[in-house]
Amino acid sequence: MDDNRITVYKGMRDFPPETMLKRNYVVSLIRNVFESYGFEPIETPAVEHWETLSGKYGEDEKLIYNFTDWGERRVGLRYDLTVPLARFVTNHLAQISRPFKRYQIQPVWRADKPQKGRYREFYQCDIDTVGTPLLTADAEILKALSVVLVRLGFQGFLIQYNSRKIFPALTTTLKTGAEGERSLARALDKLDKIGREGVREELLRYGFSPDQADRMDELLSLEGKTDEKLSHLKKTLCDGPEKELFLKEIQELREAFSLFSLDEEHLHFHPFLARGLDYYTGPIFETTVVSPRVGSLTGGGRYDNLIGRFSGQNIPAVGSSIGLERIITVMDELQMYPFVKKTLVQALMAFPDDRFRRQAVDLAEKLRSQNLRIEVYLGKKDLRGQISYALSKGIPYILLLGEDEAVKNQVALKDLQSATQISLPQEEAAAFLREKAK
Amino acid sequence: MDDNRITVYKGMRDFPPETMLKRNYVVSLIRNVFESYGFEPIETPAVEHWETLSGKYGEDEKLIYNFTDWGERRVGLRYDLTVPLARFVTNHLAQISRPFKRYQIQPVWRADKPQKGRYREFYQCDIDTVGTPLLTADAEILKALSVVLVRLGFQGFLIQYNSRKIFPALTTTLKTGAEGERSLARALDKLDKIGREGVREELLRYGFSPDQADRMDELLSLEGKTDEKLSHLKKTLCDGPEKELFLKEIQELREAFSLFSLDEEHLHFHPFLARGLDYYTGPIFETTVVSPRVGSLTGGGRYDNLIGRFSGQNIPAVGSSIGLERIITVMDELQMYPFVKKTLVQALMAFPDDRFRRQAVDLAEKLRSQNLRIEVYLGKKDLRGQISYALSKGIPYILLLGEDEAVKNQVALKDLQSATQISLPQEEAAAFLREKAK
Repeated sequence: MDDNRITVYKGMRDFPPETMLKRNYVVSLIRNVFESYGFEPIETPAVEHWETLSGKYGEDEKLIYNFTDWGERRVGLRYDLTVPLARFVTNHLAQISRPFKRYQIQPVWRADKPQKGRYREFYQCDIDTVGTPLLTADAEILKALSVVLVRLGFQGFLIQYNSRKIFPALTTTLKTGAEGERSLARALDKLDKIGREGVREELLRYGFSPDQADRMDELLSLEGKTDEKLSHLKKTLCDGPEKELFLKEIQELREAFSLFSLDEEHLHFHPFLARGLDYYTGPIFETTVVSPRVGSLTGGGRYDNLIGRFSGQNIPAVGSSIGLERIITVMDELQMYPFVKKTLVQALMAFPDDRFRRQAVDLAEKLRSQNLRIEVYLGKKDLRGQISYALSKGIPYILLLGEDEAVKNQVALKDLQSATQISLPQEEAAAFLREKAK
Repeated sequence: MDDNRITVYKGMRDFPPETMLKRNYVVSLIRNVFESYGFEPIETPAVEHWETLSGKYGEDEKLIYNFTDWGERRVGLRYDLTVPLARFVTNHLAQISRPFKRYQIQPVWRADKPQKGRYREFYQCDIDTVGTPLLTADAEILKALSVVLVRLGFQGFLIQYNSRKIFPALTTTLKTGAEGERSLARALDKLDKIGREGVREELLRYGFSPDQADRMDELLSLEGKTDEKLSHLKKTLCDGPEKELFLKEIQELREAFSLFSLDEEHLHFHPFLARGLDYYTGPIFETTVVSPRVGSLTGGGRYDNLIGRFSGQNIPAVGSSIGLERIITVMDELQMYPFVKKTLVQALMAFPDDRFRRQAVDLAEKLRSQNLRIEVYLGKKDLRGQISYALSKGIPYILLLGEDEAVKNQVALKDLQSATQISLPQEEAAAFLREKAK
């Protein structure tokens, strides 16, 4: 039996330094890109009132960690970053200028069954633009996400896009009534997994007639380039305002993509993309890395009504989330990091015995003031022991102050990878290490 | 009545971009200093098993947010970063090289009564060195903290230090028996607040005899420089191994301070410093900023037995925590930030009408690829509206692409603070903005 005193709670993880190095690399790359587009960070509390969270996540509401506090208030742990954003905007309406562009990188918690790649605590990275109905905001977010993926090394990705406005057009065409929309979205959301035949069976199970299910299946046969798909839809969707709204939105979205020079080769119009969440109202999108074949890494869309549910006034918004945990898993597997280091430490300051301790500490201080990361060995081992400590930690260099060096105001610099050693004047050590770190 | 749907849970806070800018400045300064000393980041989960947390915080255990999960496991939210570290070390014993130097910056949660400056969610910044009994580790941590305080702008600070080993020496001297130690520590912990007379009353209340309380009061009269205090203690403390251990530790600590060139003027030996937590075993310390008079900003000490309670093998450790929230409050009040900006955005790319939108977006992309943070205005307002948007957000510059500029491949650059405007070739805009950002 596990000893609960010393084990990590199931589905959650410790991140040791070696892992943090990689996570911080990815996170700071993402931050830099988001900030270059004018998105700014916010944070919200881990705990939210139950009233804030409830009724926002559909069936998944049962996965919210929730409890009652001492004041008999029911509260829950942050489940995603979109609902807290909507609550935040409502709270800060008077202080924020719109369009309000924010990013947020914080852990969220879900009482899910832990399994490979699925955790109960994981980080989300969200960007959202609040306060403009213009689809240039949607395109800008996709552009920023593309830059992130390219800089991380994912060259072969596809942005799949659609508009939720196809659903009213579909229900009109299939004559299911408005109540068919949710079933249709739920069935189509599984298309990738269960295929066309699976969707057909699913629709029959939801009470669609065989005729309706067949018509939907026929629509799913649509193929070709974006223009071909659109002209096919123009022909097969039933005429009416629903169809017009849908086609107009796709048109506007494509113009916005072109404004941001989003590459045609990365764009893929997928008119049956559904996305699970209920609150999307317009464009929806996912990016999928196709080479290597790693699947979906980002997802998002426009949700023009969600903030209104908090604030009482309709405030349009669009956003997307990056699957940080998935990205890190894939980058680990494919060894995509541009470094192999296990530690931030640039050199270990070593010394043969206590006589040289003082000089070692002083030299280390000088190097630190020149922005280097230097560890002075704090244990009790001899020089051999210090070297094996550096090796086990993956520290690349040893700075050594011994009898010879101390007298000549020099320092020996041992490259642990090539096992070579040079001596150089102490005041040149900083420049040398900085050069090596490049 | 508050509307729970839209209000923040009591004692917790939203951090809007303007606040995040300041918090991130402080946090990244702290990270840089910690890393320069070879401390590396780790993170641990928000949720820990109840068995990990219980029995570690004394009376404060009742402040741990705790609940039962779906699998009927009792769990609690992270209450500090020291107990999770002890659990982490036990879990990763085979993988970590010792001395293990880590820092950790994460929020913790306490079901405390919210009041000014006290929150239910707040960040802790901890550094700890695990696996060496040498007090050079203690001194190194105090050195790193000093560098943090100086770089943040707190010049006039005092490191108060003591060793918990004085308590056995005191109980021997007062003849209270070992069980008097905890009462003594509890009473002395309040010395700053209640004064000598208060401590005397407290001791009587705990069952000390008037004679014992008087002797303690006499000890508290001790004043002077470190050497004077030590020679007074040498005379008044009862002879025996307890006194020797205490004096030896203070001696060793002073040598370690000297090794790290910790300034005498910043050091203050305070033989009755107690620190609340039960788990300290040796040196304990606090840093107090005296000018301006802002009180305690860091606190820590050596806890050589805590990890053993998890791992079964004794692993010495020392650490300290920086009061991030307190630092930020004080820096806000005293306006100690080296910047006044409200936003990360370096310039807003504006355009008089849609004809210039495409060129504006393209120029912004070019500037971003040169590491600048440029926002393209995404709303519907005219030029005047765009300028007032930039002003309200605190963006310092407007980049303007109008008829004249577009033809000449130039861009107008409006300094919103001085209300001056120049035109320059587009390819010079990046260098200009970078220069201004310095």
